[in-house]
Amino acid sequence: MSKPSIPKGTRDFLPKVMVKRNYIFNTIKQAFVKYGFLPIETPCMENLSTLTGKYGEEGDRLIFKVLDRGDKLMRGLDQIDEGMSQGKIEHTLCKEALRYDLTVPFARFVVQHQNELSFPFKRYQIQPVWRADRPAKARYREFYQCDADVVGSDSLLFEVELIQLFDEVLSNLGLNDFSIKVNNRKILSGIAEITGLSDKIVDITVAIDKLDKIGEEGVIKELERKEIPQEAIEKIKPLFKIGGNTKDVINEMRQLLADSEIGLKGIDELAYVFEKIEVLGLEKAKLEFDVTLARGLNYYTGAIFEVKANNVSIGSICGGGRYDDLTGIFGLKDLSGVGISFGADRIYDVMEELNLFPETSDESTQLLLINFGVKENECLKILQRLREDGINTELYPEGTKLKKQMKYADSKGIPFVLFLGEEELESGMFQIKNLQTGDQKQASLKDIIADLS
Amino acid sequence: MSKPSIPKGTRDFLPKVMVKRNYIFNTIKQAFVKYGFLPIETPCMENLSTLTGKYGEEGDRLIFKVLDRGDKLMRGLDQIDEGMSQGKIEHTLCKEALRYDLTVPFARFVVQHQNELSFPFKRYQIQPVWRADRPAKARYREFYQCDADVVGSDSLLFEVELIQLFDEVLSNLGLNDFSIKVNNRKILSGIAEITGLSDKIVDITVAIDKLDKIGEEGVIKELERKEIPQEAIEKIKPLFKIGGNTKDVINEMRQLLADSEIGLKGIDELAYVFEKIEVLGLEKAKLEFDVTLARGLNYYTGAIFEVKANNVSIGSICGGGRYDDLTGIFGLKDLSGVGISFGADRIYDVMEELNLFPETSDESTQLLLINFGVKENECLKILQRLREDGINTELYPEGTKLKKQMKYADSKGIPFVLFLGEEELESGMFQIKNLQTGDQKQASLKDIIADLS
Repeated sequence: MSKPSIPKGTRDFLPKVMVKRNYIFNTIKQAFVKYGFLPIETPCMENLSTLTGKYGEEGDRLIFKVLDRGDKLMRGLDQIDEGMSQGKIEHTLCKEALRYDLTVPFARFVVQHQNELSFPFKRYQIQPVWRADRPAKARYREFYQCDADVVGSDSLLFEVELIQLFDEVLSNLGLNDFSIKVNNRKILSGIAEITGLSDKIVDITVAIDKLDKIGEEGVIKELERKEIPQEAIEKIKPLFKIGGNTKDVINEMRQLLADSEIGLKGIDELAYVFEKIEVLGLEKAKLEFDVTLARGLNYYTGAIFEVKANNVSIGSICGGGRYDDLTGIFGLKDLSGVGISFGADRIYDVMEELNLFPETSDESTQLLLINFGVKENECLKILQRLREDGINTELYPEGTKLKKQMKYADSKGIPFVLFLGEEELESGMFQIKNLQTGDQKQASLKDIIADLS
Repeated sequence: MSKPSIPKGTRDFLPKVMVKRNYIFNTIKQAFVKYGFLPIETPCMENLSTLTGKYGEEGDRLIFKVLDRGDKLMRGLDQIDEGMSQGKIEHTLCKEALRYDLTVPFARFVVQHQNELSFPFKRYQIQPVWRADRPAKARYREFYQCDADVVGSDSLLFEVELIQLFDEVLSNLGLNDFSIKVNNRKILSGIAEITGLSDKIVDITVAIDKLDKIGEEGVIKELERKEIPQEAIEKIKPLFKIGGNTKDVINEMRQLLADSEIGLKGIDELAYVFEKIEVLGLEKAKLEFDVTLARGLNYYTGAIFEVKANNVSIGSICGGGRYDDLTGIFGLKDLSGVGISFGADRIYDVMEELNLFPETSDESTQLLLINFGVKENECLKILQRLREDGINTELYPEGTKLKKQMKYADSKGIPFVLFLGEEELESGMFQIKNLQTGDQKQASLKDIIADLS
């Protein structure tokens, strides 16, 4: 029999990793709820027609499709012709698929349940998604997304709130040095407008988005390759030089975009958000205006967010932005939305690198009762009492060698052991040992419970 | 554009339902952890070969298969012959599938990671599974399972612990009247042995398992249909009459099975478990020995558990048992396991019927700040202060009509609203209204925070 395995790009999570992952998810959830976002869940399987055409051609190829069953499958096979395209074949054999992200299913959800929801609708959703990407370091075929979105309001207060959320969650997780970069798609539209190239906005934003990676010269080369005229490039160049404090940058940009109505609107929105955050303050985050930030995604229409952990060489750990027509693809027009997404896998890697996970967790066993095979009923009652007092406790299931029991505690990361020897059970005074420090002391059950609680 | 929909047998969960579902899941998780069970997760997609052949022919058909991609798909299609069986076709076009339950993936997990685990290994797992069953009331194609298992120990203390877990979880959820039925597969083997029909044990247990539903006569008819000789049926009949308190029943059964070694072993195991539970007591559960309990499943080798809510007409809400060779299918022999499963969907239905869900949840918004469009910065600071003090709070995003804001609070089930009028903001004394009782009072922010905390 061959050794069992799992599909390429998927993962098993063992308890030690799960406890850490849950620490991240719980911290995120707690903050979401504090800000009034409520949970929803959608099925992992969507109708294939809901998903196709939403992620571009490449995206369509990367969607995992679920094979039809029974007669439907046999009829589908009969319909397959020589020379049929692969996409067509997939649609002939499959009517369902695994979701590719949480955003399109959320849009579908809002349209389908519009009469059951109160707007502005604030939801969070933490569920896995699937992409048939080539697996690589930190790129998986099954991974969790953690999204919070508000739909049905264009109030900029939500932009402010989402920035506070980034700050609160990441500060609570122990990150000390991270930047929330903010831009506004309208500013990018304004830049395209003043260069007279509004139809080239995607090329321009994709190019300047790379400033971080390829530098000013690289961006200019890319703009030339996209056939942006030299005159327009000259108008864009000042962007690369703009610096100083945010207020100065905003003022400089306001002058640069003086002739673009949409550009000025973008500046106003951005200035409003910065002003509110200045009033409220942030815990650990640095808020930065980054005019080169575009996040590739073409559906943002207002604010664009990206969060980076400084001094850790990993891409962005969170992102988000405002989109004015998310639900339009499903026939519900004019519903503005703004949302953010936490990249749990990358946050996990950052926290591991910086050693930020707490040593103990209330999601694991705190105490192992060492079993000497005596007075079983007494041992069970002590176990019961400890659990009733809220202490995560196990009794080793048999009175076997001490070494084996200690090894069990150690491998499971249980911080304390308590010895249930005959003498201890009679006297009511127990030896408790801290396996991290090696300290051992004698105490009554009552004191032990008080200590561990 | 047609109205968007989701696949048959799947569900969207809106916030109100999610909050209740999470209440169930969290209660279960908390108890699991208290008893030393740690979380694991396995991928939703497994290799198809991991799953096939584990659930019988019907089960294999009900597994959702995931279509191969790219060249592999095209090569597969080329290999399909006229007259190929559907199962063969599926295996030609698919190498991956959605898991059908959590048990087989767990067995695969234990074998694959055996060198990273410490035994006895106690894990819990709460994840969705998929079955292409015909959808019906309370039968879904995507649903959650909540399992806790111990592998690598044959200590009966775990049977005791799992019964305590049933009791603790369901009592914590507010159920007052439920029965934990217990049997032992070895007792069923003993019955088959004393009737001289050990090879017919499956037919016999499947028949007597139905006593509840079809009565004594029905069971006898089914035994006759399975060609169990009249003489054997006469030996089984006394089972239907056995009654009284558990100790008496155990004694009667001990006499009945006096000639069967395995039967007596089953009685001993059962008696041990009942004795320990008697020492420890149960909160709300009634513990019952039900010799007719077989749970159809053929892989149990020791204890068999089933939990029913009394006075609610729904099937069993939990189940479980001991299996001596779970991992044998993946080549790891002699690892005994025992586990239980909570039926979250059915528990949800029972709780709805008995109105057991708490009115408020710490997973939803507690307070809405009514926005009158004045002193925005002050309002934002108050919002921030409330959240810092751990109160789930929202500020309505614009100073619109009061009625609209109240309706928002109502539809979202927010229990309190606080009015941020100009006067209040100046005086620091605020009106807070309880929307459930209609009570309104004036208080300082400090007192309000103390009240809501």
